[in-house]
Amino acid sequence: RIDGARLWQSLMDLARIGGTPKGGVCRIALTDLDRQGRDLFVQWAREAGCSIRIDAIGNIFARRAGADDSLAPVMTGSHIDTQPTGGKFDGNYGVMAGLEVVRTLNAAGVRTRAPIEVAVWTNEEGSRFVPVMMGSGVFAGAFTLEHALAQRDAQGVSVAEALAAIGYAGQAGAAPAVGAYFEAHIEQGPVLENHERVIGVVQAALGQRWYDVTVQGMEAHAGPTPMELRQDALLAASALVAEVNRIALDRLPHARGTVGSLEVHPNSRNVIPGRVKLSVDLRAPDDAQLLDMDAALRAACARIAAERGLVIDVEQVVYFPPQPFTPHLVEAVRANAADLGYSCMDVVSGAGHDAVYVARVAPAAMVFVPCADGISHNEIEDADPAHLEAGCNVLLRAMLASAGV
Amino acid sequence: RIDGARLWQSLMDLARIGGTPKGGVCRIALTDLDRQGRDLFVQWAREAGCSIRIDAIGNIFARRAGADDSLAPVMTGSHIDTQPTGGKFDGNYGVMAGLEVVRTLNAAGVRTRAPIEVAVWTNEEGSRFVPVMMGSGVFAGAFTLEHALAQRDAQGVSVAEALAAIGYAGQAGAAPAVGAYFEAHIEQGPVLENHERVIGVVQAALGQRWYDVTVQGMEAHAGPTPMELRQDALLAASALVAEVNRIALDRLPHARGTVGSLEVHPNSRNVIPGRVKLSVDLRAPDDAQLLDMDAALRAACARIAAERGLVIDVEQVVYFPPQPFTPHLVEAVRANAADLGYSCMDVVSGAGHDAVYVARVAPAAMVFVPCADGISHNEIEDADPAHLEAGCNVLLRAMLASAGV
Ligand SMILES: NC(=O)NCCC(=O)O
Ligand SMILES: NC(=O)NCCC(=O)O
Repeated sequence: RIDGARLWQSLMDLARIGGTPKGGVCRIALTDLDRQGRDLFVQWAREAGCSIRIDAIGNIFARRAGADDSLAPVMTGSHIDTQPTGGKFDGNYGVMAGLEVVRTLNAAGVRTRAPIEVAVWTNEEGSRFVPVMMGSGVFAGAFTLEHALAQRDAQGVSVAEALAAIGYAGQAGAAPAVGAYFEAHIEQGPVLENHERVIGVVQAALGQRWYDVTVQGMEAHAGPTPMELRQDALLAASALVAEVNRIALDRLPHARGTVGSLEVHPNSRNVIPGRVKLSVDLRAPDDAQLLDMDAALRAACARIAAERGLVIDVEQVVYFPPQPFTPHLVEAVRANAADLGYSCMDVVSGAGHDAVYVARVAPAAMVFVPCADGISHNEIEDADPAHLEAGCNVLLRAMLASAGV
Repeated sequence: RIDGARLWQSLMDLARIGGTPKGGVCRIALTDLDRQGRDLFVQWAREAGCSIRIDAIGNIFARRAGADDSLAPVMTGSHIDTQPTGGKFDGNYGVMAGLEVVRTLNAAGVRTRAPIEVAVWTNEEGSRFVPVMMGSGVFAGAFTLEHALAQRDAQGVSVAEALAAIGYAGQAGAAPAVGAYFEAHIEQGPVLENHERVIGVVQAALGQRWYDVTVQGMEAHAGPTPMELRQDALLAASALVAEVNRIALDRLPHARGTVGSLEVHPNSRNVIPGRVKLSVDLRAPDDAQLLDMDAALRAACARIAAERGLVIDVEQVVYFPPQPFTPHLVEAVRANAADLGYSCMDVVSGAGHDAVYVARVAPAAMVFVPCADGISHNEIEDADPAHLEAGCNVLLRAMLASAGV
């Protein structure tokens, strides 16, 4: 069993780097605070007997040798970059849980057959540099290293320059094989808490399609323009917001439909809106359902445009296919949670995670633990130490089962 | 009959002051361009034999003496300040039409019994200083002179300072009695054009109630948060946008309901909106109907809040009572339009105008003419010279009937 107090202490120590007055963390990818966080991890990993490897996109791999070092490593990890107003647990928990597994194996004097690795993936959040999940995306070949290194932040600094500046531009080369990958993460949603379960056995990550939608109506004076002669872009956009919700409600339990961003032009009290731009985020557990939702969205746009005599333009801007996790690893998570006496339930990951990319090139699974009120990407993000300990114990057992003793 | 070509030429000459490359006019209230426009009007009015009086809020009154100067004047006018991206006709037409009436009377050697006055009201648009319709509002006692003079623009300049700077801070004193007030104005809407009528006989101005509405939901991650556990502020706001439209559609032909402005927080693609602020603009021809719409709005907010488990706050920020125009003056407009052989129809003014305030203290009526595609508050605002001429002829006849010859 892992040492819950030591795990909690590591999380609290790491959270001081970039800690905010409100109790959150602001440790943006590839800043000097990110360097300090990385340096602390590397120091701790070295103290725990690990060797360190950095790849060309700045991913850190801390390796605990196995009995047979020719075997592909059993890997765990996550990220330590945060949102600008992020919390102490998102990402950080997965990395500290990995370190705690290594420390526990050391304390117990356990030698695994396959090596154990703890990964710190670069720029998962995407707050400073897009695309999100950059380090694991390059690792999995979702996009090229060159593409990632060339991205620039709002100040014009490239990923390549930022990596060099903090001393984490490592060696290029093909990504090594991974025997199995496990990632522990806070749920970032309310399902486990609502069901009063401690462990979420993550079956899959939802597929995602993101869109930019523009509704083009006719700007006119709100006073002299009779209701029946209007082409009100906001009225049409509002109908679309309701449809996006309906499209997901018709496909419960796992489908999601969200309009998170909406901008009105000219946005003046007594002017009928002439143009509205909005985002649509559709998610579903399988590609057929996601395509069906795509078709429903396009049909809704066409119908609303025809009914109201205006133009609606739909452009898809992001696509993540649904990503099932590897059945025997998912089963290992479930069986070990049950063995340890933790209440658990099957869940899906509604959000993207590094594990979603790694699952493209290696067997992978995730372990979710509850977070307070389901809140994440927020300085008030919180989690119960007992839940974090439980998730880490499940991680330890599942990794041991994969690595062999 | 008035001289349509001379009227058009005056409008085009005035439009050069603050003229924009796109053919519009930017002549913001109490700027140096406003001063140049005022100076040109004063020069033209003096050349036409008028005496000039400036009041303490900067309203200009150009007076053509009558046979009996003890009679209250028959007044016309409008404003020459514009929106930042305004057109050549909004306001300017009413002032130039008044000047054209004076010139026509001069050319025909007509002496009226009552004096004729042409008013240029200060800051109708309210783009730089609120409240809108400031000069006519002070004249009508809708708010005090002191209140108006103390208002400041975004740079901190007060109305009093701006008036002094352009040399149009005139004499304080009680507003003199007005025998009758007529205002010619472009319709700023599409009704006359749609009905192919040249003259709009304005019965009344709609009452207005403006609101600030805040929908408070719960910000959460769009991926991990199931549909049934959301408090989506934008989804609730969208239902309200549809309701505002419905409230007006249920009360045709004259009721209006518009959400012109809507802002989403945090307005991020993959975050369920936690808070939405929106404006509501309700208009109706009588106060009972407007109050009924107010009740319907508040009921809709309460119902949506209850159904969706979130909080909706409604605050009224502006109220203009419905303003009927004076029946015998309205009849004079209609009779003279018919006499002159112009097609005409009864309309309501959906927008506020200086005449709406003046009608609180004097008999008043308005003459509307079509504007191209109903577009106003836009640099492409346009009007047919023949329609402008027609409206001015109706104005001339109606003023003669009131002033006596
Ligand atoms: N975990 C996370 O916030 N991923 C970002 C992409 C998403 O919205 O799923
Ligand atoms: N004419 C005009 O635009 N007035 C402003 C107030 C309103 O929206 O009616």
